[in-house]
Amino acid sequence: MTIRSVAIIGLGLLGGSIGLAIRERASDIVTTGYDSDPAVRDAARQRGLVQSACESAGEAVSSADLVVLCVPVGAMEQAARDLSAALPANAIISDVGSSKKSVLDALMTALPDHVVIPAHPVAGTEQSGPDAGFATLFAERWCILTPPANADDAAVSSLSQFWARLGAKVEIMDAEHHDLVLAVTSHIPHLIAFTIVGTASDLEDVTRSEVIKYSAGGFRDFTRIAASDPVMWRDVFLNNKGAVLEMLGRFTEDLTAMQRAIRSGDGDALHDLFSRTRAIRREVIDQGQDDEKPDFGREH
Amino acid sequence: MTIRSVAIIGLGLLGGSIGLAIRERASDIVTTGYDSDPAVRDAARQRGLVQSACESAGEAVSSADLVVLCVPVGAMEQAARDLSAALPANAIISDVGSSKKSVLDALMTALPDHVVIPAHPVAGTEQSGPDAGFATLFAERWCILTPPANADDAAVSSLSQFWARLGAKVEIMDAEHHDLVLAVTSHIPHLIAFTIVGTASDLEDVTRSEVIKYSAGGFRDFTRIAASDPVMWRDVFLNNKGAVLEMLGRFTEDLTAMQRAIRSGDGDALHDLFSRTRAIRREVIDQGQDDEKPDFGREH
Repeated sequence: MTIRSVAIIGLGLLGGSIGLAIRERASDIVTTGYDSDPAVRDAARQRGLVQSACESAGEAVSSADLVVLCVPVGAMEQAARDLSAALPANAIISDVGSSKKSVLDALMTALPDHVVIPAHPVAGTEQSGPDAGFATLFAERWCILTPPANADDAAVSSLSQFWARLGAKVEIMDAEHHDLVLAVTSHIPHLIAFTIVGTASDLEDVTRSEVIKYSAGGFRDFTRIAASDPVMWRDVFLNNKGAVLEMLGRFTEDLTAMQRAIRSGDGDALHDLFSRTRAIRREVIDQGQDDEKPDFGREH
Repeated sequence: MTIRSVAIIGLGLLGGSIGLAIRERASDIVTTGYDSDPAVRDAARQRGLVQSACESAGEAVSSADLVVLCVPVGAMEQAARDLSAALPANAIISDVGSSKKSVLDALMTALPDHVVIPAHPVAGTEQSGPDAGFATLFAERWCILTPPANADDAAVSSLSQFWARLGAKVEIMDAEHHDLVLAVTSHIPHLIAFTIVGTASDLEDVTRSEVIKYSAGGFRDFTRIAASDPVMWRDVFLNNKGAVLEMLGRFTEDLTAMQRAIRSGDGDALHDLFSRTRAIRREVIDQGQDDEKPDFGREH
């Protein structure tokens, strides 16, 4: 089963990048798309994110082999219901959301008679909207598929091939494990970044202007992540509550231990941790997940 | 009083960058240097970080108008004592440490009869050592001087001009306020990054390999900061304990509020915070403290 026609629902950073990646790397695939915001549909037409930016979700999916929902995870169930009447019986339903158990449940509830295979390409930038996407967003990044236990092997294989054509490396795991892994590699880092940026802007004894001026000391790195889409991230935390709270508990436990080490002047405990973490950076670079250039290659 | 001769003690990222910046932007200034590690002195000679890499601190400072200590903040007092016998009476003693009250106290204790003007160029990368420095590290970055209350105006002015010649923008504030500001813009971000990278590598239910593979979800940003020099950072936390603990208290209070919002499903509280933080990123970029390119301009 080869995917010849893809409908993209939601034409922001992820949806737009899928459309552009198909155009650049898999131009035999027909693309249609829909976004509930008319201005986004217009922008999508101007950038050519999909071949046809339709005026309804039903129109977009009516001939699709694969539908990819690129909406906030809290909006998945309604988005699926909105297109269910027009959906071909053998179409694969997938998505790009950052939490997977809630999406799997939502899509199987909304579309009980269809093949549902949730997916999460671990890629993105802090920008959002129809102007933010680009064709190489998924190159050398991992895309995790979380098929339900009874999933059709041929459909999983088709979806894997689709993502591989866009440049991604594909991994398959169950939705619960995905949610635990991503809680630590993505959700908690975002929560921490949002929080510290908020903390810094609310201080009385340090002005906002000082925070901005001296942000090159490390803080500015956190502002990038904290500029990510607010609705998308609200939904991630509401839909991956269990794993996020568990990982947050581990983090605050470790942070409390560091706090105690600082208070008691335990330099060895600090030095121990700070030495171990350097090795992780090396592995991230060695495995192609970040650039080796100092300071992310920022210009100096 | 013009600075014509600078001695750099400690030839790592910061010391090396000062030497290279002088060579490129202020080549009329004579540079000498010293590092307690013979291998670093050799590397400094090969890269030409200073004109003379001396075999003792005393030799390096004997004709200096300005001595810049580029050693971990916990090593400042001893470094100052080691050169005190050879130090010209009218030389200015400064440094580049990330905490300032402890350094001011240490240097005034070690060199009670000299002009002490601590400084902190808010610039760096995650790399360290004599190969890490580069001439433009300080360009468009802020350098904060924290002179004691009775400081000689002419000396403060000379040091300001020196840093301006290296491309920095100079600000003057008192040491205590510096320590509070940098706790939030630099020290707490580093502590959080070190901690979450440690947490992620200690989990049982998520493997280290998974943490690395899916780090593009946000975690990899934290690994950069967490690759910073362990000794330097141990000393920062031990020497800015009060401000770090105060700011850490604010952060954990805010993080607990977010935890409660997630547990109780309070989407509005999450959305509120996530919307406010986006504006801070905009200001960081508008004020030239970071690049506008998405994802720090990483190649995709």
